Amino acid sequence: MTSRRELLQWMGVGVAGLVAGAVTPARAQHPAGHGPAAVPSPSDPAPPRTGEGYRPIRTLNGWTLPFRMNGGAKEFHLVAEEIEHEFAPGSRAICWGYNGTTPGPTIEAVEGDRVRLFVTNRLKEPTSVHWHGIDLPNGFDGVAGLNQPHILPGETFVYEYTLKQHGTHMYHPHADEMTQMAFGMMGLFIIHPRAGEETPIDRDYAFLLHNWALHPGTYRPDPSIMQDFDLWTFNSKVFPAIEPLVMRTGERLRIRIGNLSMWNHPIHMHSNPFWVTGSDAGRWPRSQWRREVTEIIGVGQMRDVEFVATEPGDWALHCHMAHHTMGPMGHGIPNPTGVDQRGVEAQIRQLLPGYMAMGENGMSEHSEHVAMGLTGPENTLPMMAGQGQFGPIEMGGMFTVVKVRDDLAAGDFRDPGPYRYPKNGVARRVSTDADFGQPHRRMPYGPAKGRRPAPASEPMPAMDHSQHGKSTGG
Amino acid sequence: MTSRRELLQWMGVGVAGLVAGAVTPARAQHPAGHGPAAVPSPSDPAPPRTGEGYRPIRTLNGWTLPFRMNGGAKEFHLVAEEIEHEFAPGSRAICWGYNGTTPGPTIEAVEGDRVRLFVTNRLKEPTSVHWHGIDLPNGFDGVAGLNQPHILPGETFVYEYTLKQHGTHMYHPHADEMTQMAFGMMGLFIIHPRAGEETPIDRDYAFLLHNWALHPGTYRPDPSIMQDFDLWTFNSKVFPAIEPLVMRTGERLRIRIGNLSMWNHPIHMHSNPFWVTGSDAGRWPRSQWRREVTEIIGVGQMRDVEFVATEPGDWALHCHMAHHTMGPMGHGIPNPTGVDQRGVEAQIRQLLPGYMAMGENGMSEHSEHVAMGLTGPENTLPMMAGQGQFGPIEMGGMFTVVKVRDDLAAGDFRDPGPYRYPKNGVARRVSTDADFGQPHRRMPYGPAKGRRPAPASEPMPAMDHSQHGKSTGG
Amino acid sequence: MTSRRELLQWMGVGVAGLVAGAVTPARAQHPAGHGPAAVPSPSDPAPPRTGEGYRPIRTLNGWTLPFRMNGGAKEFHLVAEEIEHEFAPGSRAICWGYNGTTPGPTIEAVEGDRVRLFVTNRLKEPTSVHWHGIDLPNGFDGVAGLNQPHILPGETFVYEYTLKQHGTHMYHPHADEMTQMAFGMMGLFIIHPRAGEETPIDRDYAFLLHNWALHPGTYRPDPSIMQDFDLWTFNSKVFPAIEPLVMRTGERLRIRIGNLSMWNHPIHMHSNPFWVTGSDAGRWPRSQWRREVTEIIGVGQMRDVEFVATEPGDWALHCHMAHHTMGPMGHGIPNPTGVDQRGVEAQIRQLLPGYMAMGENGMSEHSEHVAMGLTGPENTLPMMAGQGQFGPIEMGGMFTVVKVRDDLAAGDFRDPGPYRYPKNGVARRVSTDADFGQPHRRMPYGPAKGRRPAPASEPMPAMDHSQHGKSTGG
Repeated sequence: MTSRRELLQWMGVGVAGLVAGAVTPARAQHPAGHGPAAVPSPSDPAPPRTGEGYRPIRTLNGWTLPFRMNGGAKEFHLVAEEIEHEFAPGSRAICWGYNGTTPGPTIEAVEGDRVRLFVTNRLKEPTSVHWHGIDLPNGFDGVAGLNQPHILPGETFVYEYTLKQHGTHMYHPHADEMTQMAFGMMGLFIIHPRAGEETPIDRDYAFLLHNWALHPGTYRPDPSIMQDFDLWTFNSKVFPAIEPLVMRTGERLRIRIGNLSMWNHPIHMHSNPFWVTGSDAGRWPRSQWRREVTEIIGVGQMRDVEFVATEPGDWALHCHMAHHTMGPMGHGIPNPTGVDQRGVEAQIRQLLPGYMAMGENGMSEHSEHVAMGLTGPENTLPMMAGQGQFGPIEMGGMFTVVKVRDDLAAGDFRDPGPYRYPKNGVARRVSTDADFGQPHRRMPYGPAKGRRPAPASEPMPAMDHSQHGKSTGG
Repeated sequence: MTSRRELLQWMGVGVAGLVAGAVTPARAQHPAGHGPAAVPSPSDPAPPRTGEGYRPIRTLNGWTLPFRMNGGAKEFHLVAEEIEHEFAPGSRAICWGYNGTTPGPTIEAVEGDRVRLFVTNRLKEPTSVHWHGIDLPNGFDGVAGLNQPHILPGETFVYEYTLKQHGTHMYHPHADEMTQMAFGMMGLFIIHPRAGEETPIDRDYAFLLHNWALHPGTYRPDPSIMQDFDLWTFNSKVFPAIEPLVMRTGERLRIRIGNLSMWNHPIHMHSNPFWVTGSDAGRWPRSQWRREVTEIIGVGQMRDVEFVATEPGDWALHCHMAHHTMGPMGHGIPNPTGVDQRGVEAQIRQLLPGYMAMGENGMSEHSEHVAMGLTGPENTLPMMAGQGQFGPIEMGGMFTVVKVRDDLAAGDFRDPGPYRYPKNGVARRVSTDADFGQPHRRMPYGPAKGRRPAPASEPMPAMDHSQHGKSTGG
Repeated sequence: MTSRRELLQWMGVGVAGLVAGAVTPARAQHPAGHGPAAVPSPSDPAPPRTGEGYRPIRTLNGWTLPFRMNGGAKEFHLVAEEIEHEFAPGSRAICWGYNGTTPGPTIEAVEGDRVRLFVTNRLKEPTSVHWHGIDLPNGFDGVAGLNQPHILPGETFVYEYTLKQHGTHMYHPHADEMTQMAFGMMGLFIIHPRAGEETPIDRDYAFLLHNWALHPGTYRPDPSIMQDFDLWTFNSKVFPAIEPLVMRTGERLRIRIGNLSMWNHPIHMHSNPFWVTGSDAGRWPRSQWRREVTEIIGVGQMRDVEFVATEPGDWALHCHMAHHTMGPMGHGIPNPTGVDQRGVEAQIRQLLPGYMAMGENGMSEHSEHVAMGLTGPENTLPMMAGQGQFGPIEMGGMFTVVKVRDDLAAGDFRDPGPYRYPKNGVARRVSTDADFGQPHRRMPYGPAKGRRPAPASEPMPAMDHSQHGKSTGG
């Protein structure tokens, strides 16, 4: 166990740094002889734990909190604090998180473990931590006022209990919960089965869904917004800053997705159906595994989905609500589609700096504007972003890619780059208007002007009639 | 397989017509000797396919795309284009669709088929097609930029793959997806099992949920709207323009419902519970069929529901969110309930032509206004519509009727008209205030003024005490 | 069966009272010799029915409708009418309900019963009743216009059918449905199994989810609102006016939750996972029971959840959407977090009486304001409310507590008060900034100023190093 004196030593250096500046992440040197980390920070993630017989979680764009053993218990230390966070290059905000990041570090433990969790409050208002989905004694459930006193600014509280279950869980405040979650306070709490996985998992990813009312041109999320959010995130990042999920063909992937946003998000994976295998209440019996390509993850829910990849390639994984794969929207602007806007945009920009017309013919003009270097309001991402090997991907927000490759080494999580398609393995052009004697309208970002980037292999093969015919197998 | 020259011939006549006018649907004469249709249009739906051993889909208010066999593959041709669409008489808009309609035609094929899908882009911006839920090689998955080049205006692309599964799927763009789907680009893709249905289905309906920001008085949907939609549709139609689902008592009905809107819609069927039997990831094992009266269809999800009708009658089938069974709402108008508005409405109409007060006593006054011939803003449906055999139905949007009859011929899908109720088979009036010596307030659309339409049978029988007593069986 | 003459007698006294004033609840004396109640009112709930072999429902903050036997049928009488309703002390409104309350009284019956339901319309517009989820003849399904004539003001209609199923159902209007439900017209309809429960239930709670657009300072819900609701309720009450769910450790609790709001609400129970065991379509086979800690209850859905309590304490039960556990929000006010607002609030209050700043450092300042006696706009609850044994709970709306105790008598539903925690059984403070030589910021509602209420037991024990170490069991 930890005495107050030990805690003083454990936290010593970090605290001095923290008090100095409000947006300095909790960064601490290791005090000699005091375990894995004084106040663990993202630069000191926990090393992979092969010794305990479990495959460590891959937290998308995140990290795992180190612990130290003390009197038979695993001791973890969370520090609630204001941080500066980047959603993607071009969009930063003052947020709240734990140990320097949003989401906070992932806590990993094993069924049967005794855990002792210290929570230090470096915010300017009281907080608490609720261990969402974990079956524990009532006094450690974390609803401030109801189950415990508030953790006041400057105080450190301790929670201690034994993990009676395994599965996928979360932690978040239960004090001024609306504000604190709207600012980014949340984290994953994964409990591995003591007896090992019944069905071995090769790669085990996890992330949390969230939304942010970071209005264009501002630097703090607005917690009073109920629906009109500007940023929709996986682990507090937006596309294209979200890491890909990398796996080898034939491997079994598990993705653990939790939702602490304000929408029940339908998460869709392209083409390879998955099984929904459990929730924050634990793993379901196999007879209940349900096959889906889109699963609604409710607010306050976690869902485990699993599949064995059969088709290599770059597979989109995203929320299927169209606006949730978009950057901030110019709500309240009259509908411009079908309206000739020549000259109008320039005039509007005099009144409204950063205004970008939506386009007479649709939003793809927006991609062109972005490619041309036009920018929107300060600190505001374009609505559509991302460059693929074939051109702009025209997405944003809750969108990333599952990269399935035939030739990855086990445990290699590095981005393998764009997929190299086999010959004739890509949808391709077979004609244009010019073939019919009509003028062919060339788009500014089309191949005619050389702005379509060179693909990794041969995405637009010339038609090969002999091969094509044979491949139909009909 | 199809050479470019053949495609020229196949598309020839249609293209000339298409180029002429932007909102002319893809209509084409059959070029002699060139298969089922040059560019298939709604006036040339596919004939029922009894030869292939499956019962064809009944697409609500829609049609099935013909194909032609070529080198062992089924060739389909989708043309993305601007169209003019009617949601219900009184509400039209410039939309985007395929082959002249929104939703586009339903694609039907059989497990194991080789399919070759041509996609011609007649829009003024790039597009692509994603085959939602279908397990295929990555280069045909349709995410523009990521998996393929954009299909530029005037270009025709081809996708080709073998169907490894059966079930209920969709197709939609994955390029400027938000705009293109907001304008109506979507369709159903049904794959029948090669071995036939395990449990035979007598009637097999399908439709897609969608929402449209067609602001009152305008003619183009606004793609920037996230939540405040004006029209909520089954296959791009609103009640009362949505076809009924017709079936015979004792038949097994399947309804396949997909969602490409911006809400997770809870779809409710009256009285007869159904089983949820599968999703866009395919059919679930029987042990997983779940009994419901309301099923949430998430965005980007499909759900198959099935039931055997036991009770004849006219059964409502609708989204249970009250505003989704309404026409366009006058949001932003102060709450008038409980306020005496005599004289106010006329004054407001001077400022706001088409203004219709919501009513001091509720919305039913609105039905009366509509019945009296008052109209709202140009090109705008009333909030509540539909006339049943007993009076106004006071619904709109996502609402239709499952008509179960004892005496239908198999395969007869014609609207049988209103249900003829058995004697004493309808809820009925047993007293009025007048019976208690109180003045009885007669409503303007009540039977007193003769505006309640004559029922098909005897909906309001005089009380028959002798029969009534016996029928309780108690 | 009931003749019109009998009905006259049955309703006699009640009607006279009803006609006198629009917002007088349906209150009626018992006419001598005429059954359980003339028009049943909340002061005359049905007595517990032990004779029929079922455990009566505990309707949260509600009551059960008495019936009388007549010719082998159970006769119930619902009166639709305008009422005055209190959401919690400090917030009242003119609503619509049945027999004096919203929700209306719970109807309880037994599988196989013949039921005869009289519905009297005391509103100023037509109505009807749909018996949601109940399998019955089409003419009693209640969609006005489609299945029956409207029940006009002053009319009484009768519905009669035999209950072919058991389970959890609802009733609500299907005429001007949007308005009538937005004003509170809804109720529960529970059918007990004829053969008794397969798995005995010790306590059987039920409530309905709803939302209300009762804008600050107003007294009537606004039915045109689709999303920006002000009040989120369990059985038309908000925290802290919602009753707790009381149970004994080891008992099996069932909670039946229905949703007639405009959101699919994710309902979360703290720590003790539950099984989802059925819906409004009836009970699911045991193999389909699904373990969850959060279940999305869709609009127009009911869900039964069950669990056996293992851990005593006060466990939060709430919607997990943060704004749905809040009181009315000041939407449209600029985001104040991070902004020094000294002096600003007083100025704004001159322009906008009742304005309460959100707080530079988060919403907890709001709790302090409330505790200091500051009030918001007239008839408007604070955003966060509730006092627990350890301080403010900072919740509102859809939030209540499941109180599990080791020592309750069977059938004792009285609030047992706050849980008395065992020694060392509560998260506790182990240090403050002062321990590190830093000034410790004392919050106004912290223990320093004595405003933290005395806990029921010893929530903040002094650290007991010897015990603490041993209890880790490590």
